[in-house]
Amino acid sequence: MTATDSSVPKSPGSVLVASLGDPAGVGPELLCQAWFDRGSSGLTPFFVVGSVAILGAAAAARGLEIPLLAIESPDQAAACFADVLPVLDIAGLDYTPGEPNEAGAELAFQSLEVATGIVRGGGAAALMTAPVAKSQLARVGFIHPGQTEYVAERCGVAARNAVMLLAGPSLKVVPITVHAALADVPGLLNAELIRSRTAIAAQALTRDLGIANPRIAIAGLNPHAGEDGRFGTEERDIIAPAIQALLEEGLDVVGPLPADGMFHPAARRRYDLAVCMYHDQALIPIKTLDFDTGVNMTLGLPIVRTSPDHGTAFAIAGRGTADAGATIAALRMAGEAAAHRAALSPSPTA
Amino acid sequence: MTATDSSVPKSPGSVLVASLGDPAGVGPELLCQAWFDRGSSGLTPFFVVGSVAILGAAAAARGLEIPLLAIESPDQAAACFADVLPVLDIAGLDYTPGEPNEAGAELAFQSLEVATGIVRGGGAAALMTAPVAKSQLARVGFIHPGQTEYVAERCGVAARNAVMLLAGPSLKVVPITVHAALADVPGLLNAELIRSRTAIAAQALTRDLGIANPRIAIAGLNPHAGEDGRFGTEERDIIAPAIQALLEEGLDVVGPLPADGMFHPAARRRYDLAVCMYHDQALIPIKTLDFDTGVNMTLGLPIVRTSPDHGTAFAIAGRGTADAGATIAALRMAGEAAAHRAALSPSPTA
Repeated sequence: MTATDSSVPKSPGSVLVASLGDPAGVGPELLCQAWFDRGSSGLTPFFVVGSVAILGAAAAARGLEIPLLAIESPDQAAACFADVLPVLDIAGLDYTPGEPNEAGAELAFQSLEVATGIVRGGGAAALMTAPVAKSQLARVGFIHPGQTEYVAERCGVAARNAVMLLAGPSLKVVPITVHAALADVPGLLNAELIRSRTAIAAQALTRDLGIANPRIAIAGLNPHAGEDGRFGTEERDIIAPAIQALLEEGLDVVGPLPADGMFHPAARRRYDLAVCMYHDQALIPIKTLDFDTGVNMTLGLPIVRTSPDHGTAFAIAGRGTADAGATIAALRMAGEAAAHRAALSPSPTA
Repeated sequence: MTATDSSVPKSPGSVLVASLGDPAGVGPELLCQAWFDRGSSGLTPFFVVGSVAILGAAAAARGLEIPLLAIESPDQAAACFADVLPVLDIAGLDYTPGEPNEAGAELAFQSLEVATGIVRGGGAAALMTAPVAKSQLARVGFIHPGQTEYVAERCGVAARNAVMLLAGPSLKVVPITVHAALADVPGLLNAELIRSRTAIAAQALTRDLGIANPRIAIAGLNPHAGEDGRFGTEERDIIAPAIQALLEEGLDVVGPLPADGMFHPAARRRYDLAVCMYHDQALIPIKTLDFDTGVNMTLGLPIVRTSPDHGTAFAIAGRGTADAGATIAALRMAGEAAAHRAALSPSPTA
């Protein structure tokens, strides 16, 4: 089945670019599914940097008939998006779903590189990155811990100033530390880190998501937020001073709050953003509530960048069962953030 | 309004005892609400060790007309429960909701002491403890970290062998460490602790909850369960050996699993019990999912003991707004566990 949808906007200034992700993962098929659902999902036009052959095979394996068009330049994408999935074709590669290899990793890397460059150069309004496998990328000379750090560096932003936001329909949450052993977390935290990441996040919520004065709830590190120092003193020594500094900057911040009481429905109605101290404190609630629709957005960059909050899922690639909800949500969020930025600045990308 | 309900069972062998909790907290009013809802909630008959005067005032403040009957002995409770709330009256105390004082803390302590003694002596089939304030109890010579440790000691069980289960309609979870600073958690964990607490929990799920061969999922400590040692080695050095030992005991155990992926609906369908390494890893998901209905059950004791998974809530006591869901769930779980034990042993309490 093919479909056209004249309701999809065609303004050339509001096209998004998606990287392909690892071709042996679920990225290509989910991009095809997202295009297929473009009308019902209200997606901003996008194009993929990758391979017509791979996307065609991924669509077929999922049982989708997707018309693909190789474009020469990003400015061709918006006009044809209603009728075809535009692809900036940089490779024609044989691949097998679920069986990653070096050629696929190289293509994933090149796609990320070209897509990032296009957004940096103003050829697209935002970047959506499909999932890669870090272990595969490491085999082809990719030296960054992940795509976030790569994109930050390409934008001239130190990785420590790029802030991860995880967003779903139920919750938005920023982890202050991310991929660190739990034993290392207390030593990695300091008041300035918490202050600066929260301030970056607050600014981005206004600029990219249109929340004028975001209400921010900051978690403690310890059980019951330390219970007045009974179980740890980081709340008093590190988190409370960061909150004081943020209040002095005029931000609407409360905490440190006991983390276990922050995520039930009544608690979530009291804030726009939860700031957590470590990976699982942030990821447990959002994956419990919004497992199939979580978006990872990188804050603090000169560009808009989102990705679905899941990995390559090699084990189910090519079977047609992977849920496209997070990819669609990541594309929608990228489009909304690009629109918010465009409203603030007359011509941000053209 | 008063109510009778002839469907409430009256077997003298299946009466529960509830401690009063701090009289200035929400405990008394929630016990009254639970009695009021005894028929629709399917509660096993219970009586309260406390004060007719306090329970009457708490009911009135909540707008409930509750007939209270001072009983002389536990064996009078089951027969009258359908028509009145039976009270073993140990005090007649003036009190003000939301204003805890030493007299109230002493009554909370005495109620816990008497109620525990009654269950130990076979006068009731299970114990449900209403909330106390540890800081208040400390003022009247209570030297235990909490009610759990007190009850364990009165049962001749070392506190380290009493295991906390948190149970709600969506999830059952055991935290291996509980009230410890996050920085201390890695040092507190060892394979034997994880093995023994999980084995105690598995046995209790069978004995008290009737789950014949419980499926148990064990979380890692670090993000992504350490990602093959990239973010910490506790999974390899501590948790995996514990899992191996549990498998050798014949238990159905999987892990270490990335904690953030354990609590969405599809993941929860794969196990009966989640075992977590620290307080917030366990408490965040259950309070996110089952905030108003969470029960704390102490496993590994010769008696059945439950409590609602919330505190005294002094700030809202006497206003009639506190949710009785967790108290009702704790009474129901106590009744069910007592029935399971009674089915295993002809006359466990009489």
